[in-house]
Amino acid sequence: MKKIEAIIRKTKFEDVKKGLHNVGIDYLSFWDVRGVGKSVEERVYRGVTYDTSSIERTLVSFIVRDKYVDSCIVSIRENAFTGEVGDGRIFVYNVEDAYRIRTGDSGDRSLYDEE
Amino acid sequence: MKKIEAIIRKTKFEDVKKGLHNVGIDYLSFWDVRGVGKSVEERVYRGVTYDTSSIERTLVSFIVRDKYVDSCIVSIRENAFTGEVGDGRIFVYNVEDAYRIRTGDSGDRSLYDEE
Amino acid sequence: MKKIEAIIRKTKFEDVKKGLHNVGIDYLSFWDVRGVGKSVEERVYRGVTYDTSSIERTLVSFIVRDKYVDSCIVSIRENAFTGEVGDGRIFVYNVEDAYRIRTGDSGDRSLYDEE
Ligand SMILES: Nc1ncnc2c1ncn2[C@@H]1O[C@H](COP(=O)(O)OP(=O)(O)OP(=O)(O)O)[C@@H](O)[C@H]1O
Ligand SMILES: Nc1ncnc2c1ncn2[C@@H]1O[C@H](COP(=O)(O)OP(=O)(O)OP(=O)(O)O)[C@@H](O)[C@H]1O
Ligand SMILES: Nc1ncnc2c1ncn2[C@@H]1O[C@H](COP(=O)(O)OP(=O)(O)OP(=O)(O)O)[C@@H](O)[C@H]1O
Ligand SMILES: [Mg+2]
Ligand SMILES: [Mg+2]
Ligand SMILES: [Mg+2]
Repeated sequence: MKKIEAIIRKTKFEDVKKGLHNVGIDYLSFWDVRGVGKSVEERVYRGVTYDTSSIERTLVSFIVRDKYVDSCIVSIRENAFTGEVGDGRIFVYNVEDAYRIRTGDSGDRSLYDEE
Repeated sequence: MKKIEAIIRKTKFEDVKKGLHNVGIDYLSFWDVRGVGKSVEERVYRGVTYDTSSIERTLVSFIVRDKYVDSCIVSIRENAFTGEVGDGRIFVYNVEDAYRIRTGDSGDRSLYDEE
Repeated sequence: MKKIEAIIRKTKFEDVKKGLHNVGIDYLSFWDVRGVGKSVEERVYRGVTYDTSSIERTLVSFIVRDKYVDSCIVSIRENAFTGEVGDGRIFVYNVEDAYRIRTGDSGDRSLYDEE
């Protein structure tokens, strides 16, 4: 199992959610975060200074079986993309175990009905 | 060391916190999150359609020594449980290192007085 | 790649951010969290009872190449430190992969311009 964590533009959240649904991922958790970076704040890109720290950000976090990782990355990249500086990042982590509280299912099995 | 991350009903937070205290865990971090899922939003369970995306969620996150993991999982499952759809999830991750800022303690040692 | 997660006093955030900039880290994500602990709430330290659960907390999270980890830990410890109970914690996790959405860069390469 892997955790996929994407830090995206808040304005792209609905697109990213729909895109993940299309590759079979129906469950995720999310919350608002902020991002900073001195170099970002006074960044020159194509001759213009951009400050991306004021872009509203959502952190989207979800756990999937290994075989879903690649298609999720592709889907997020497509749906969070604008081409302008500040489109954000995706990070992947290993997950040691997972449990569904209501049923007591654990491991990959606990993730089945959401994929 | 392991990180335990539980996404629970917000209404169950105090119970979960007390339950963890009873198994020796006195330190944790938490924040509010939201959860979505197309299949969840129009889910049929026992013949009724449930939308669990409106359930308020708290993400509880804490780092413990390996030997505490099993009792924490049991405790969270007992205290976050209602039996209705939407009771939530528990995920376990490996932690590479830990530091206590005030004392400079690192590794397992930095976790002692909270267990 | 590693994720560094620091749970600090909210009042120390600007110092921690500047300190990280000084060791070459210009990108990070952060959000407000709360922390609890029964033993903390009725903790005796130097003969006085402290309740650190009311201290406002910020969780700072960022991903760096391995060679930056040690200097980041030192920097956060220096800049989040007051010497009073409740200065907080730092945790380190392994990261399996990273992507920059705009460019499609992955792995260490996706982290270059932020270091
Ligand atoms: N290494 C990192 N660790 C944690 N969060 C990061 C990291 N890099 C970027 N972020 C988060 O992603 C957000 C987007 O970063 P930024 O605006 O620089 O876009 P970007 O992904 O670098 O794209 P671009 O290359 O177009 O600037 C930041 O505000 C921050 O929240
Ligand atoms: N794979 C996942 N990754 C990240 N978060 C998840 C995942 N699955 C569930 N969640 C989070 O847990 C919350 C609870 O999910 P949900 O309401 O479906 O309950 P459940 O744990 O699936 O229980 P039930 O089987 O009774 O539906 C979601 O709103 C979401 O925040
Ligand atoms: N094991 C842990 N897992 C997750 N979060 C933790 C853990 N220990 C501490 N925290 C977080 O760090 C915050 C600071 O903890 P606390 O006030 O006890 O300070 P401390 O780091 O233990 O320093 P001191 O030793 O001076 O008390 C807590 O409120 C909580 O949010
Ligand atoms: Mg950038
Ligand atoms: Mg469900
Ligand atoms: Mg303490």
